[in-house]
This record gives sequence, structure tokens and C-alpha cells, in this order.
Amino acid sequence: MKIEFEEIRLRTSRRIEVIDITREVEEIVRNSGVKEGICFIFCPHATCFLILEEAESGLLEDIKGKIEEDFLNREYKHDRIDDNAFSHLASGFYYQGRLIPIKDGRLLRGTWQNVLFVEVDGPRSERRIIVEILGK
Amino acid sequence: MKIEFEEIRLRTSRRIEVIDITREVEEIVRNSGVKEGICFIFCPHATCFLILEEAESGLLEDIKGKIEEDFLNREYKHDRIDDNAFSHLASGFYYQGRLIPIKDGRLLRGTWQNVLFVEVDGPRSERRIIVEILGK
Amino acid sequence: MKIEFEEIRLRTSRRIEVIDITREVEEIVRNSGVKEGICFIFCPHATCFLILEEAESGLLEDIKGKIEEDFLNREYKHDRIDDNAFSHLASGFYYQGRLIPIKDGRLLRGTWQNVLFVEVDGPRSERRIIVEILGK
Repeated sequence: MKIEFEEIRLRTSRRIEVIDITREVEEIVRNSGVKEGICFIFCPHATCFLILEEAESGLLEDIKGKIEEDFLNREYKHDRIDDNAFSHLASGFYYQGRLIPIKDGRLLRGTWQNVLFVEVDGPRSERRIIVEILGK
Repeated sequence: MKIEFEEIRLRTSRRIEVIDITREVEEIVRNSGVKEGICFIFCPHATCFLILEEAESGLLEDIKGKIEEDFLNREYKHDRIDDNAFSHLASGFYYQGRLIPIKDGRLLRGTWQNVLFVEVDGPRSERRIIVEILGK
Repeated sequence: MKIEFEEIRLRTSRRIEVIDITREVEEIVRNSGVKEGICFIFCPHATCFLILEEAESGLLEDIKGKIEEDFLNREYKHDRIDDNAFSHLASGFYYQGRLIPIKDGRLLRGTWQNVLFVEVDGPRSERRIIVEILGK
């Protein structure tokens, strides 16, 4: 049984931004040599999250629009000490991790399930994404 | 350490539909012979999702109503090229996977935690649900 | 490969309540002796959930406010037989489990990612939270 950790580092440039990291995650899975197991992708942050979604440009805009509709323009108590309550709530409710099966040495994902990193408190000079692989 | 994969296949008949797959998942866990570990249930699709919820008939209607309230009847950019932005958003935000502990050879789930498959882009002739078991 | 189970038990005192269980989870990880792996925290209940979030007092209020905004004050069919449809929906959509990597014998979490238990159908004399650790 192998347990491997790798890390993806990103720079973000807007307050809300969606970045496709599928290729980086797939390369890590390939390099691990693991044939069967799980791939756990996790951001050690409380103001961003992950989503498995089609990376079509219109849909990326819709993701941002939905976050704004659901979380922006409310009176939040946390905003009295910081200005990112909406970022925390979106990050927490949507969750900073996603798990995907690994089979035959590859992510067992659907054609339209890209791994998307969603920044909701940017811009940030460095965001870390942990890719942990368990398997054999 | 065992890693086993099984698959459940479903046909769906409505645009939004909730299907209880608890019995099928439990049978897969039993047949695996795994006594302690985790059961990872995952749909390799981007327009459906999973939820652990009581399978009471009124509540199944409420789940559908909540999805409609939260995602239907908006202007989405993805709808210019396809007609299922709402399906993608519900699927992505609610996530296509659920994890349940396995202990004493059984799912360690609450009495009211049934495993429900939620179709949000039906009808579909075939939906696949991967059941991956890791344990010993 | 080790697989260990521990349990945290809580008493809740309000209908909606957020309780920080980070310290208890970290102690379980430390006592397990596992250096690398995953920590899976799971409530075997259908009317509460977990969230990784900053435990700032204003933000805890915002979490409760957001749940109320999103789920309370609707007509639900489940409420004809029970009075907790909103609790079930919040629990199911936000999910009763959270996964965190373990590395160097510690939770690989961000500074602001506390493990919060969210009661949405209290008060309850006993809530169980399973902490399952897989690793080596």
C-alpha cells in the first residue's frame, strides 16, 4: 500500500476565479505508479474550494455567477473584523476537498468531470493544493 | 489491504429523479468481505449527484423542490450551447461522491442515512455508479 | 496499514448550533500514531453536518444565518409527518462527512480550517461523530 503526497501551487489574479487543474492532477496520478486506489485533492485553505465540473467557458462564468448570487451582498457579522465572510461561507459549504477513484492507473472520472479550483478570496500570490494518493 | 470496485447501473425516467441505492451498496459491501475500511460511492458524470438522506416520500419531493428553487429559472451562459447548466451546477456544487465508513463488515451509517442517487439531467438510458471499497 | 475508529460524543442545546471539535479530532490523530494517511470524520445522522471553517464568533453566527436563509421558512412535504425537513435538507446537501489528509503525524489542514460540527435539529442528548483513520 502506497501513500504519496504531491502539491500544486497556483497564483490567482481575481477575487473569484476558476482554474482547471485536471492535467496537473492526472500527471501526479500517472507519476505515482498507483494502479488502484483513491486520489484525494485538498486545499489547506478556508476561502477557496474544489468542484468536479465541465470546463466550458460559459459554465465557468455560471459558476462564478451562482457563487455571487448565493453569497454576496448580505450583511455578515464576520465582515466587522475582516472583509471575507462570503469567501469563508462558500468555501466551507462547498468543501475544500474532492475524492476521485483511481483504476487502471488513471482517474476514474467522467468525460465532463474536470477538476476545478475555485478562488473566492483572491487575488493570492500562492494557493496550495495537496494531492494525496492511496493505493497499490 | 483490499481494494475492490463494483458498479451499479441505473436507467432514469425523469428530468429530476431521486433513486434509493442503499440496498445495492450494502450488498456490494457484504460481498466484498471487508470488515473495516471505507466505502466510496462515486458517479463518473457531471449532471447527477449523491446524497445521504432519509428516503421518506415527502422528503424526496422536498429534495427535488429545493434543487428547482436553487438552480432552475436563471439565465445561464452555458445554456447558449447546451440546455443543462442547472444540471451541471447542482451536480458540481453538491458533489458526485459520498464516503461512508465500513465497520464490522457493514456500512457505519445512521438509520436515516440512505444512499440516494439524484438525477438532474434525465431521462438517461444508463447512469453508472462506482462503488469502491478499501479495507481489510 | 492501520485502520482505527474512535468516537466523539456531544450534547447539543439549541436547534441550530455550531461546535468546534478540532482539538478532539487532533488528539485522536495523535494517539493513533499514524504518520501518513487520511482522517475521515463522519456523523451517522441525517440532521446535522460537518464543515471546515474558521471558528471566529461572528462567522459562526453567519453560518447559522446562512442555513436559516437557505432552508427555513419554506413549505416542505416532509413536515406533514415530522417537523424537520429543513434539518434533513441542510444535512444532506452539505454532507455529514469531511476528509482531511494526515502527514507527519498531524492533520494537514490550513490555519483557519477548524473542524466544526453543525447541529440543525437540536437540542439532542447525544450526537455521535466517528473519526476513522487509515494510514501507516
